[in-house]
Amino acid sequence: MTQDAILRIKNAIGGGKVLTDRKSLLEASIDNSRYSFLPDAVVKAESGDDISKALKIANEEKIFVCPRGAGSGCCGAALPVFKGIVLDLSAINFIEIDPTSWTAHVGAGAINSDIDKTAAKYGLMYPPDPSSKNYSTIGGNIACNAGGLRAAKYGVTRDYVAAITAYIADGSKMELSRPLRKFAVGMNLKDLFIGSEGSLGVIAEAHLKLIKRPPFKQTTLAAFLYDNAAFECVQKILQANIMPSVLEFMDAQSVAAAAKFKGKNMEKSAMLLIELDGEKEEVKSSQNSLEKILSTLSSGFETADDAEPLWELRRCCSSAMFLLNNSKLNQDIVLPIPKTVEFFDYFKDLGSESGLQTPTFGHAADGNYHIHFMYDGSDAKQKQKAFLAMQKAVEKTVELGGAISGEHGVGITKSKYMNLQISDAEFCVMKKIKNALDPNGILNPQLRYTSQVDISKYAQNKDIKLPWDKR
Amino acid sequence: MTQDAILRIKNAIGGGKVLTDRKSLLEASIDNSRYSFLPDAVVKAESGDDISKALKIANEEKIFVCPRGAGSGCCGAALPVFKGIVLDLSAINFIEIDPTSWTAHVGAGAINSDIDKTAAKYGLMYPPDPSSKNYSTIGGNIACNAGGLRAAKYGVTRDYVAAITAYIADGSKMELSRPLRKFAVGMNLKDLFIGSEGSLGVIAEAHLKLIKRPPFKQTTLAAFLYDNAAFECVQKILQANIMPSVLEFMDAQSVAAAAKFKGKNMEKSAMLLIELDGEKEEVKSSQNSLEKILSTLSSGFETADDAEPLWELRRCCSSAMFLLNNSKLNQDIVLPIPKTVEFFDYFKDLGSESGLQTPTFGHAADGNYHIHFMYDGSDAKQKQKAFLAMQKAVEKTVELGGAISGEHGVGITKSKYMNLQISDAEFCVMKKIKNALDPNGILNPQLRYTSQVDISKYAQNKDIKLPWDKR
Repeated sequence: MTQDAILRIKNAIGGGKVLTDRKSLLEASIDNSRYSFLPDAVVKAESGDDISKALKIANEEKIFVCPRGAGSGCCGAALPVFKGIVLDLSAINFIEIDPTSWTAHVGAGAINSDIDKTAAKYGLMYPPDPSSKNYSTIGGNIACNAGGLRAAKYGVTRDYVAAITAYIADGSKMELSRPLRKFAVGMNLKDLFIGSEGSLGVIAEAHLKLIKRPPFKQTTLAAFLYDNAAFECVQKILQANIMPSVLEFMDAQSVAAAAKFKGKNMEKSAMLLIELDGEKEEVKSSQNSLEKILSTLSSGFETADDAEPLWELRRCCSSAMFLLNNSKLNQDIVLPIPKTVEFFDYFKDLGSESGLQTPTFGHAADGNYHIHFMYDGSDAKQKQKAFLAMQKAVEKTVELGGAISGEHGVGITKSKYMNLQISDAEFCVMKKIKNALDPNGILNPQLRYTSQVDISKYAQNKDIKLPWDKR
Repeated sequence: MTQDAILRIKNAIGGGKVLTDRKSLLEASIDNSRYSFLPDAVVKAESGDDISKALKIANEEKIFVCPRGAGSGCCGAALPVFKGIVLDLSAINFIEIDPTSWTAHVGAGAINSDIDKTAAKYGLMYPPDPSSKNYSTIGGNIACNAGGLRAAKYGVTRDYVAAITAYIADGSKMELSRPLRKFAVGMNLKDLFIGSEGSLGVIAEAHLKLIKRPPFKQTTLAAFLYDNAAFECVQKILQANIMPSVLEFMDAQSVAAAAKFKGKNMEKSAMLLIELDGEKEEVKSSQNSLEKILSTLSSGFETADDAEPLWELRRCCSSAMFLLNNSKLNQDIVLPIPKTVEFFDYFKDLGSESGLQTPTFGHAADGNYHIHFMYDGSDAKQKQKAFLAMQKAVEKTVELGGAISGEHGVGITKSKYMNLQISDAEFCVMKKIKNALDPNGILNPQLRYTSQVDISKYAQNKDIKLPWDKR
């Protein structure tokens, strides 16, 4: 990228919004995948007009552009692997609620939990709650179709996006759908953009659908002698027409690690953390049915109005697993619910055969599990074993009708698995659409539509701190 | 289309599935828009393999293909305006429920209400309920993103489609998404196909999301002295965080016509038909809040456990309006809820100025109204007045942030309004995507992406009966 191009963008949108100092470049070089690639410049857009002008120049000069919110994505979809511009949208962060239409008009940089808190003032709720909700931006949530804990009952980001204002590679503005409950006019580009991980255009604003805030909830923590007993319980709950707002599974290895992490003495067990929400009578009625199922299948359960103590183990699962080994290889898979036991029998065998621990937790009501192989990062053979075992686990997932990504997207870390899930014919159509919208291929060139990054060539950067690391 | 091409398709999929007799061609020539265009042949696909083979040959021979379910679409998206093949999918009509995953696996030809009835056996529900639900097919519902009465609370077809098996113009099979609650792998072609009105590919099968069937409902019919009092009531209901499953508005003209149609003597009034559903306690609580609002704003209301008598007037609105005049010009618009009164003040003035009656009814909680200008079809001047007034009404809709189509799609009857809603840049992207997926333009060439049909050149055909006319 030439200095001339940077100058052109500075002249077009104002020099103060175009940063090339070392600190800004470092901050924009990394996301939650922890790989780091320095860009040539960071453009801090303050309006759609800024986005349009920067894109137009970048497209003319054939400079790569990586749109970025908070950088909380887990798969590297925001990383400037091939340099160019990081287009930072975090400053476009307004939030306006329309309590009559049950909608929110938000800037791409608005923080997920801020939107929900603002909606709560009107008795309304924005349901999608990725674990990054306190710092991830809605633009990034939309670009990656973020999920969360409550998706089985309430759906994912896509289900709440009524309309998007976006800009394609040549700087043209797109008003995709409208903030209405129904819209059946022309091709549905809105949903094409949702989940496209910044490869088709840059999201500036969105209108979100809101729902009535459930007034009551009840939380239950249940223990099971075996992982499979917990999976059986999940099926029984769903077959009883109960749809919990939260149905978190923790396998016995995760529970043991979390208990140790918290200094608790516990019997070996898998666990389900179950939250029912809605009107009080409805919750009480479902809770009765739930407790009947738990009485038969669990080895014990406790219920509390104050949910926080029950969440203690679940919240530390991610940190606690490093008690099992110093490095993790993880995936975010989705399984058809009836295939859960078949998959995990296979997965746990992979762990035994490779001699690696396999802590697992996840959102059981939508079959979305975060699976891990723990290994010693200083032992090359162990690392190789982990990668081979994960390849087999992902292949099994697809064979059983599951998905290689439930809520993290593909980015650069999962692109090698894309061919397992997407046929050549489907991939050909995706490439044609990418080419139609971005003929110079300037947007997120690191993604699979344009090129394939072999992440095994790179090491994660553990020196650069992300803002949420301070917590 | 040559006889050779027909012969090739017969040889590929079996002669019995390729019909060229007069009766078959006539039946496939018309949809609920009531325009009629004879195709060259009707292909009755019985499998995805049939679809793939027929498309491959049609693409090679550059023969137009119009996919068709029941033909219940209102806008002509299934019509073989430029001849070619009608690809009839109604024979692919299987329905399989998975009560653990809360999903239904269905063939494109499965009837909407049959899916819901089958789901009901497991306490589950398929919510989208277009008024054609007893005869429209799910393939057509998906292709047109059908809405219905319950969309404000439960969403539209798009919200319930987990995965689609489709075939693009060259016959390639596409597995779009998977029957899972989360899927974040690659470009979202599934939602691009939903609502594309058969222009991008042919839907063979789908996996649908189901929800728990609400066990209880309560219906209320309320009268209002003026239309605007009913609109104000709609806003108050929504602002009180009540989301009815049904909130049907009937303006005073519709109510008067319906009352006359049923031989009832009634005072002039607008009406709201309100249905609350859910768990009993939840419904009772919302009903209390609702009745407080109605006590202030309505001129009277009645509630019943047996809802059917309360639906009597609403059900005959479409037929009764012909008591006002012999011909209707209608549109299916969506308004931002806060702009409803502003729009209808303007719309009713258009009626007064043109001397035409303007009966209106619709789904008030999602702002989706079916507006009409009634005219004497034998009076060319009146007809012209109606068309001019409707043009103004549609322009006003867009000016206020509304949509020119809420649930009927665009087809050929609304294509002249597309430019009001879709910018040149957006339209350019849609055309590029159409071209990328269907470079020979064989799929539904009558739609706006390829050409524009001037429907004023054609007369509706009132001689050909559609199957549901017999009812």
